[in-house]
Amino acid sequence: MSLDTSYAARTGARREELPTTTADELQRQVAAAAAAADDVAARHPDERRGWLRALADALDAAADLLVRVADAETGLGEERLAGELARCAQQLRFYGDVAAEGSWLELTVDHRTETTPDLRRMQVPLGPVAVLGASNFPFAFGTLGHDTASALAAGCPVLGKIHPAHPETGRRLAEVAATALAAAGAPEGTLAAVSGFEAGVALVEAAPVAAVAFTGSQAGGMALWRAAQRRPVPIPVYAEMGTVNPVVVTGRGTDRLDEVAAGFVASYTLGMGQFCTKPGLLLVPAGHGAADRVVAALEAASPSGWLLTESIAEAYDRGRARLADAGARQVGRAAAPAGGWGAEPTVFAAAASDVRAGSPLLEECFGPTALVVEYDGRAELEGLLAGLPGALAASVQSGGPDDPEVPALVRDLGRRVGRVMVDDWPTGVALTWSQQHGGPWPATTQPTATSVGAAALGRFTRPVTWQSVPGPALPPPLREDSPWRLPRRVDGRLA
Amino acid sequence: MSLDTSYAARTGARREELPTTTADELQRQVAAAAAAADDVAARHPDERRGWLRALADALDAAADLLVRVADAETGLGEERLAGELARCAQQLRFYGDVAAEGSWLELTVDHRTETTPDLRRMQVPLGPVAVLGASNFPFAFGTLGHDTASALAAGCPVLGKIHPAHPETGRRLAEVAATALAAAGAPEGTLAAVSGFEAGVALVEAAPVAAVAFTGSQAGGMALWRAAQRRPVPIPVYAEMGTVNPVVVTGRGTDRLDEVAAGFVASYTLGMGQFCTKPGLLLVPAGHGAADRVVAALEAASPSGWLLTESIAEAYDRGRARLADAGARQVGRAAAPAGGWGAEPTVFAAAASDVRAGSPLLEECFGPTALVVEYDGRAELEGLLAGLPGALAASVQSGGPDDPEVPALVRDLGRRVGRVMVDDWPTGVALTWSQQHGGPWPATTQPTATSVGAAALGRFTRPVTWQSVPGPALPPPLREDSPWRLPRRVDGRLA
Repeated sequence: MSLDTSYAARTGARREELPTTTADELQRQVAAAAAAADDVAARHPDERRGWLRALADALDAAADLLVRVADAETGLGEERLAGELARCAQQLRFYGDVAAEGSWLELTVDHRTETTPDLRRMQVPLGPVAVLGASNFPFAFGTLGHDTASALAAGCPVLGKIHPAHPETGRRLAEVAATALAAAGAPEGTLAAVSGFEAGVALVEAAPVAAVAFTGSQAGGMALWRAAQRRPVPIPVYAEMGTVNPVVVTGRGTDRLDEVAAGFVASYTLGMGQFCTKPGLLLVPAGHGAADRVVAALEAASPSGWLLTESIAEAYDRGRARLADAGARQVGRAAAPAGGWGAEPTVFAAAASDVRAGSPLLEECFGPTALVVEYDGRAELEGLLAGLPGALAASVQSGGPDDPEVPALVRDLGRRVGRVMVDDWPTGVALTWSQQHGGPWPATTQPTATSVGAAALGRFTRPVTWQSVPGPALPPPLREDSPWRLPRRVDGRLA
Repeated sequence: MSLDTSYAARTGARREELPTTTADELQRQVAAAAAAADDVAARHPDERRGWLRALADALDAAADLLVRVADAETGLGEERLAGELARCAQQLRFYGDVAAEGSWLELTVDHRTETTPDLRRMQVPLGPVAVLGASNFPFAFGTLGHDTASALAAGCPVLGKIHPAHPETGRRLAEVAATALAAAGAPEGTLAAVSGFEAGVALVEAAPVAAVAFTGSQAGGMALWRAAQRRPVPIPVYAEMGTVNPVVVTGRGTDRLDEVAAGFVASYTLGMGQFCTKPGLLLVPAGHGAADRVVAALEAASPSGWLLTESIAEAYDRGRARLADAGARQVGRAAAPAGGWGAEPTVFAAAASDVRAGSPLLEECFGPTALVVEYDGRAELEGLLAGLPGALAASVQSGGPDDPEVPALVRDLGRRVGRVMVDDWPTGVALTWSQQHGGPWPATTQPTATSVGAAALGRFTRPVTWQSVPGPALPPPLREDSPWRLPRRVDGRLA
């Protein structure tokens, strides 16, 4: 039997050995999810909102224990983790509210005319969804995070794969969730947790699994995407992967360069740089000593913390070596804490001429490091932007609301990312209807999707149209008397 | 230089040799589309509606010539083609109206709160779209068909590949379109037509091309899908492919079996069976002599016509041989017309025990043939349905609105298709807001999409969120004063 080992990030000590899911167990869990799928799909969204609220309440009630275990495993700090857990509960409630509001069903009714039949259309749940939880957010993007909450809200059972960076946290979450869902009346099979690499692979290959959601590395996301395409029936993979999220300082923005440098350091070292939205690249007009000022900001802030796992710590060192090999100079660093997988926050600088499309300088280095590049005029900046791969987010740091460079920069960056902001930082993704957490390839494998925000439900649905179907055979929300009272478009008009 | 040869389907005679697009020409056309993309995307949807209406008017004005040429090439008949051309014009107008209505932009505004920044989200056009026109609908699914109309409506330039089944028709359409678009003020590069196999391949590989839409065979769609994934930046391929679209007759439905048989024959031989929505499989309760009655209906109707090309005619013969090899018996046929690629409408019958998942009996045979299978009771029917691959559409032929079998059949079939109907036939896809033309794999490569209906625009867009972006740098429809006056969701509520 294979094992998940729980380590303490702060010391590197083994905490516990936990058995992983066997092939037989996995098969039973998948079968239970498949058996529950129709029931979960057919419930009124208000019922599923009830389950999600019960999950949220249960997380709040178990917060002390969950935060303590997660902190021991990840070293992310109890304050951050308590905030993240509260947020995870808020997410569950948010997606429940979105489900109940009903617009995601896209209910559309076209009555029969002389030339067209009665046609009624809605989004239906895809079926069981495999959620591969992230390393860096044990709660918010874990097995009860955005993917799970939005899939359940959309009416899909979820099979959540626990990340080996925090296996005990994952198991505790699964226990809390199982109790809460059962008490709230959710069918057996609505939610299951699995663990172990083999179980993750088997999930993506299991015939009843209808979609995969993943937050993590480029390598992991691409492997899943390819595996899903090799299935007899390929399925969508919503992989959100790490990217270099560029920040452009305008000419006038240099007037507040120390403030920008401090904000940049705070953002790129938040959670020890283990954010997929980490700003990894700062583009600054030449002649303002930008790299030195970022180094000064780093020294002033002296962020200190641990990376999540030994393999992440090793990958971080390899990533920094790759930046150096590609021509970047390490210009500053802060001390790593003693013990465990202590992170050493660093700053690199590179010449604009070295930053070309395809360069390793434009690959994500997961962890608290970032690259500062000076540009000499608009033409050089445009050349740099043209070489950037697709990313989750991009920022403009401006000289204020009248800065004449902002509109064109927002437009140009908007073509390359899923979210563009002005005088804000990309870390800290707010949860509202308008949020977009995704972006052009290779930021995600599905640039049309989002893993955060109200639109996240849409990933787990597909449209079906009923033609000339008598009322009793229609899904309730499409019947003529609209018993679910949800928003519909009728004969072309929003009702 | 390679050539497209225009043949007359009725005689097999060569009509004309037409030069195909050279590599240099293609590169220029792609570059023009890429150069036009921002301008096309930024226009108010009302402007693009104007272009689409101009295209529609131009088609109406050129109808006589276009129908004559298309009929000579395809043998589909002037009446059918005149109807299809009128419908193509109607489609262009419909997608223009959908664009102008604005819901497809999914405009969402969340004002700043104490804990969240100002966030505004909308769908933006992907960029140039390659449309590979279908063989079977030179107008409705051709280079000015649903894919092109919906892509233009969504703000994407289109590069349309002319199908070699009707190369002169494609060229005439392109001439009409170019004149109309120029007169309507569309930027150069908004729409181009290319021809030749090499040009089609090059389109899918061209870096600026952002999406591919295709209607055609399984083999063609899968090849495109794979090619698009091998690109450095993979792009979505919306391939709608042929499937066996099942029809289930209920117990009570056998009371009207002669009427059903006649409807089935009319639907599966419409356009000589060259419809992706052709009903290819009739499942009937045993003991009613279903196959004989379908044969009688075929003999009574005596449909007669030509297949589109020599290769389709050859594939039709191979497909029928494949059915026979898999255990089906040919039980009836009608005569093929003399000359050219005359089609021989046929009926096959097979035992339910031979119709298993993966059997060639469940593969589409493009052309006027269909398979009749008797089932003995609900359990056998459920076994048959469980083996069906995903399809575009499925039908129930019932004994009337109170038929107790209908709700469960509609539910079961709805899981396997994009459109399910009762007492209707799948051919003849109405164009309304609720339409869905797509379905689970392998009916399409993107089961979440549709190529017909208002939702078709969404295929060619992706979401972008603007965070804390000052008004002048926002796209107009997201500005606080909403100058485009399109529907928006503001702070969670539809406005």
